[in-house]
Amino acid sequence: MVHVEDRGFQFADSVYEVMRTYNGKLFAAEEHVARLFRSLSAIGLEHRLTAKELIGIAEEAVRRAAFTEAMVYLQVTRGVAKRHRGASARIAPTVVITVRELHRPPAAQWEKGLSCITVADNRWGRCDIKTVALLANVLAYHAAQKTGANDAIFIGADETVAEATAGNIFIVARGELRTPPKSPRLLSGITRDKLLEAARDAGIPCAERTVTKVELLAADEVFLSSTTNEVVPVTVVDGQKIGTGKPGPVARGVYERFLMMFTRL
Amino acid sequence: MVHVEDRGFQFADSVYEVMRTYNGKLFAAEEHVARLFRSLSAIGLEHRLTAKELIGIAEEAVRRAAFTEAMVYLQVTRGVAKRHRGASARIAPTVVITVRELHRPPAAQWEKGLSCITVADNRWGRCDIKTVALLANVLAYHAAQKTGANDAIFIGADETVAEATAGNIFIVARGELRTPPKSPRLLSGITRDKLLEAARDAGIPCAERTVTKVELLAADEVFLSSTTNEVVPVTVVDGQKIGTGKPGPVARGVYERFLMMFTRL
Repeated sequence: MVHVEDRGFQFADSVYEVMRTYNGKLFAAEEHVARLFRSLSAIGLEHRLTAKELIGIAEEAVRRAAFTEAMVYLQVTRGVAKRHRGASARIAPTVVITVRELHRPPAAQWEKGLSCITVADNRWGRCDIKTVALLANVLAYHAAQKTGANDAIFIGADETVAEATAGNIFIVARGELRTPPKSPRLLSGITRDKLLEAARDAGIPCAERTVTKVELLAADEVFLSSTTNEVVPVTVVDGQKIGTGKPGPVARGVYERFLMMFTRL
Repeated sequence: MVHVEDRGFQFADSVYEVMRTYNGKLFAAEEHVARLFRSLSAIGLEHRLTAKELIGIAEEAVRRAAFTEAMVYLQVTRGVAKRHRGASARIAPTVVITVRELHRPPAAQWEKGLSCITVADNRWGRCDIKTVALLANVLAYHAAQKTGANDAIFIGADETVAEATAGNIFIVARGELRTPPKSPRLLSGITRDKLLEAARDAGIPCAERTVTKVELLAADEVFLSSTTNEVVPVTVVDGQKIGTGKPGPVARGVYERFLMMFTRL
């Protein structure tokens, strides 16, 4: 439980990370904690947490939970204070860690791919900070579900693609793997970076560059990336089939290379 | 306390109201609860709460707290569920009510007025919904405090004024009282509406229309409105004196009329 006057509850004054294990060991824990520290710094949240301490606690939580594979949710808030938008720097941050068992979705689901809708990106200007101010993402996801789709992809006022409601986006066009560049409009995914590394290792031409909505719809392949779901093909966008309407060879190849490079025992 | 997996804590999937008493009685409770219901509807949060029930609970909380004047904070979240951005419609909402003693700030503070900075409005596209996704407001307020100012005023990309970090904005120009029109860019304040009513009653010409940053800086008077602070003069914006640099006659006149019309025994 957390206090009702925790600033995470009353002001979304809080940042978080989701980590996972492979073979029972935390994956990319240093990168996740480094990003958490960047988020904390971006919202001016002063703390005395250290990477070693947080990774140590997360590892202990994973050990105690004793699942085959686990997902670790780590949230830091500015702390508890009498409700006012201005916070004293002297309050102590709240740290919450939860662990759940992680199952990879069934292969049949992967082979089917996701149906996504596009939605106007009405989120705030700092989507590069991993904050819990996720209501716009919740509403976009619900909007997708309402139409019978699986997820939503945020499109900016300039008609370019930002990201999905909980994952980065990749397209394949003219044999090139493309993903929008890092900017305040999207979260810099750790899996995103690892997939680019895997793709380069596999000799697939890669580009971090702007993707328009038109390019998204015309792509040969589209897929999403995230820590918990790794690589997920998108086979339909706004009711239109992407490429053949089936997961493509680049998604499959990059995913296989990623698994080989980063997740083997 | 609330559960760590309350969606208010993990997704800012939650809306709220702040009410107050005058003479120990809740002020404009029907309007506040009606707005809460509009917020709940805007985020698609299904519930079985009734206005009568919520007002009854708030009244009881005020009675039990037994302060001379009280402030009531009422927050409704989508409830507790295993963390996922998509929520089942079947979970029960969490309702939190807290009561605090309310003191009017000292008159000397009112006479001094506030110093505000302007900041680029980087908030999401639905600021008309009273959600707890308030991190951008927190950061703007902290930015103001850092420069030695009291508060921040959000300016859109079109160089027009939206609102302050916790209040609506009014300016006086050419004898006319102006406030930006209702739109997704600002919260429709209950005090804002009551002040317009009071101003019209006092024979002051009023207009709900766009206010540019240039008009803000050149105004004869500027003031903020909110439930807890009622009317607060702004005497400095971005280091520039507004009008005479003192609270003006329109702010004073509207405030007096407001108090007379709505807050007497």
